[in-house]
Amino acid sequence: MKDKIPYKIYLNEDEMPTHWYNLRADMKNKPSPLLNPATGKPLKAGELTPIFCEELVKQELDDTTPFIEIPKEIRDFYKMYRPSPLVRAYCLEEALDTPAKIYYKFEGNNTSGSHKLNSAIAQAYYAKKQGLKGVTTETGAGQWGTALSMACAYLNLDCKVFMVKISYEQKPFRREVMRTYGASVVPSPSEATEVGRKILAEHPGTTGSLGCAISEAVEVAVKNPGYRYVLGSVLNQVLLHQSIIGLETKTALDKYDVKPDIIIGCAGGGSNLGGLIAPFMREKLRGEADYRIIAVEPASCPSFTRGTFAYDFADTGMICPLAKMYTLGSSFIPSANHAGGLRFHGMSTILSQLYHDGYMEAVAVEQTSVFEAAVQFARTEGILPAPESSHAIRTAIDEALKCKKTGEEKNIVFGLTGTGYFDLVAYQKYNDGTMTDEIPTDEEIAASIARLPKVDA
Amino acid sequence: MKDKIPYKIYLNEDEMPTHWYNLRADMKNKPSPLLNPATGKPLKAGELTPIFCEELVKQELDDTTPFIEIPKEIRDFYKMYRPSPLVRAYCLEEALDTPAKIYYKFEGNNTSGSHKLNSAIAQAYYAKKQGLKGVTTETGAGQWGTALSMACAYLNLDCKVFMVKISYEQKPFRREVMRTYGASVVPSPSEATEVGRKILAEHPGTTGSLGCAISEAVEVAVKNPGYRYVLGSVLNQVLLHQSIIGLETKTALDKYDVKPDIIIGCAGGGSNLGGLIAPFMREKLRGEADYRIIAVEPASCPSFTRGTFAYDFADTGMICPLAKMYTLGSSFIPSANHAGGLRFHGMSTILSQLYHDGYMEAVAVEQTSVFEAAVQFARTEGILPAPESSHAIRTAIDEALKCKKTGEEKNIVFGLTGTGYFDLVAYQKYNDGTMTDEIPTDEEIAASIARLPKVDA
Repeated sequence: MKDKIPYKIYLNEDEMPTHWYNLRADMKNKPSPLLNPATGKPLKAGELTPIFCEELVKQELDDTTPFIEIPKEIRDFYKMYRPSPLVRAYCLEEALDTPAKIYYKFEGNNTSGSHKLNSAIAQAYYAKKQGLKGVTTETGAGQWGTALSMACAYLNLDCKVFMVKISYEQKPFRREVMRTYGASVVPSPSEATEVGRKILAEHPGTTGSLGCAISEAVEVAVKNPGYRYVLGSVLNQVLLHQSIIGLETKTALDKYDVKPDIIIGCAGGGSNLGGLIAPFMREKLRGEADYRIIAVEPASCPSFTRGTFAYDFADTGMICPLAKMYTLGSSFIPSANHAGGLRFHGMSTILSQLYHDGYMEAVAVEQTSVFEAAVQFARTEGILPAPESSHAIRTAIDEALKCKKTGEEKNIVFGLTGTGYFDLVAYQKYNDGTMTDEIPTDEEIAASIARLPKVDA
Repeated sequence: MKDKIPYKIYLNEDEMPTHWYNLRADMKNKPSPLLNPATGKPLKAGELTPIFCEELVKQELDDTTPFIEIPKEIRDFYKMYRPSPLVRAYCLEEALDTPAKIYYKFEGNNTSGSHKLNSAIAQAYYAKKQGLKGVTTETGAGQWGTALSMACAYLNLDCKVFMVKISYEQKPFRREVMRTYGASVVPSPSEATEVGRKILAEHPGTTGSLGCAISEAVEVAVKNPGYRYVLGSVLNQVLLHQSIIGLETKTALDKYDVKPDIIIGCAGGGSNLGGLIAPFMREKLRGEADYRIIAVEPASCPSFTRGTFAYDFADTGMICPLAKMYTLGSSFIPSANHAGGLRFHGMSTILSQLYHDGYMEAVAVEQTSVFEAAVQFARTEGILPAPESSHAIRTAIDEALKCKKTGEEKNIVFGLTGTGYFDLVAYQKYNDGTMTDEIPTDEEIAASIARLPKVDA
């Protein structure tokens, strides 16, 4: 077997997916609809189009069409950095001395350094097609902002990025990459928006959060003609675009007759996990196959494992629609000492529903153990992983070590969403031995959950 | 044609080269031998083995064996990040509106961010095989140091890196990557060596140079039992290992019946250029085919275009063997405002001989025009290139624009040696408009050339 499966499985261009897969079409219990926070009623397309591009609103609301064609222009862009390799982790297997066979889908081989580009180009394309001037967005670790800047540069669209303040300060080079691609980058919360000024007044000295940057970006999009807001995770449309990850993975595995036993992905807002598992979950939903699917989240921001399944705002400023999801409450802000990414308080409504219905498991892992796994992976497999991706590595290693005990030759597939080249401040903390684990208390979580909006749905 | 050639040509594992190609075997005028600076006589293997590993000394001195087998262990490591893609630059061609067809061999898809890993793993492997404890080296931009750290981590070898001080300060994150892979990193010149202390006394406040860092690394290797020195460029053995770049490129082009008209590579010490052109130069040397081959160097460190062909030291401390090469003099230190890499005063003896014999051309380009090309490339092709690689981009674009004028559909191949993710200080300078061109005066070059050692050979 070892001789048959190459270190990296690449698809040819003619094997690349031509359609995205829409998980919702096969879900019996559909994700609950977005609600208008003012009325408590499900949002209609017309209420969303001032915020989002028209075609993306259509994709956001479509829970019946299983396959949606990828426009040729986007497929051409994908060819610049896709297909991404599915790597057989021979060296890691050897280092762990495990009978498990480990595969990872590596999405970091592009300048944005992650899978985010898959949805960035789609969203930028539809904005361009609609004749818009530009888009606004938020970015945390900076992966999404970089991805969007690249897509906008390619299509000649203006790009305004609100970057979570702590990342802006810890990652000056991320900002410079975005500038190189022509984007303007503002640390959030900022004085540039009403909601930013309000948050700064209430929490002077805050290091920011994704939820807060989202509020600012939405405000600017709504107030500036010719602009719309785009988001790199959480949304249904994003999971749709990211399904390319899973579709390629499945095609690559099928070529070598490999059936995964366990599929593992890190989960912040859910974009990578939702994309990676899409075609496998399809088979599971249709009763055609079974897989163990594990979401891995940071112990410092544990929406699945310690949050509640309820309607909540996606943003801190509470100007976004309400979404039913696993959430820690939109006022929850993870410790500033958390360096591992995945800082979002909520979770994709699709994944939340699937988790609620028992189709997925979730585990929370602590950041020092995540960086330990990251360094082991870097030294054996060569690639320096993003902290986010390293959550999946941690759990993949843990599962492989269980196989070592039981002697089972399980096939483990995980998503290596990106590289850590702009996360060296975090690595330095780990290398210096000054990294700590930052776990919220039950009281902290209860307090922010107590502030959830009251919704009857 | 456009529909036939994919955006990226990947080889399968069974198409990957099994042998390195040794250019010297086909050269009529062999590169001049290394000389012992004390005696002025050609160095024998026994004089080199205190500095270099035995097998590498053999490779260094072998100018007759054309193909040398790549050990299986190294080929396995190569499979972790190779074959690298040969990319058809469809988007750049469109942006330039040129009839030329542009291809680039992209060596940046690994954590070291460049082609340097190709030789790092080979040198570390032979050190390990010889039973050594560790290796010492220098690094400038940090690509080589990172590559060597990765290779040493993989093989459990100790790794001591002297990093040119200006890079150490401008690239703290590079240092952190090396530390993550377990290497120790010292800014050069340092107080840790005799030669470092001497240079610091003579030039207090110097920002360092590759030549100076080499002296320090060699001193530590020679003085510490169980250690040898390794070098990422210039040497014959390095060009041998880097021939994998050209061999893969040629196989990929042959698959689609593409014959390059022009082959372009950046040239600092010559490792990438020598590797990229190897199989093409073979045909040229044997009269089987003809190609225009262009070395691109920075106007701030123009060894080919303004240097002299003479015996010189590879290091500032003048403790290394003498090599006959195009050189600006080992006391030449490029302006500290030069941010574009390729700061070495000399050049590979192989490439120097080939250039001297008329097999290659050379051009020098200024750094603002290099970064202009880099940004254009980033925005069209997606990849943020290393400043070094961007020298080749500059000239590839210039040649493609000539084709636009003449209407010629030339095939242009260039080496995209790496990514610029750790060069954002330089990009920031360019983005801020504060980058300047730094061209040495004739007097400056004459002064350092006047200090060349006197050798009759």
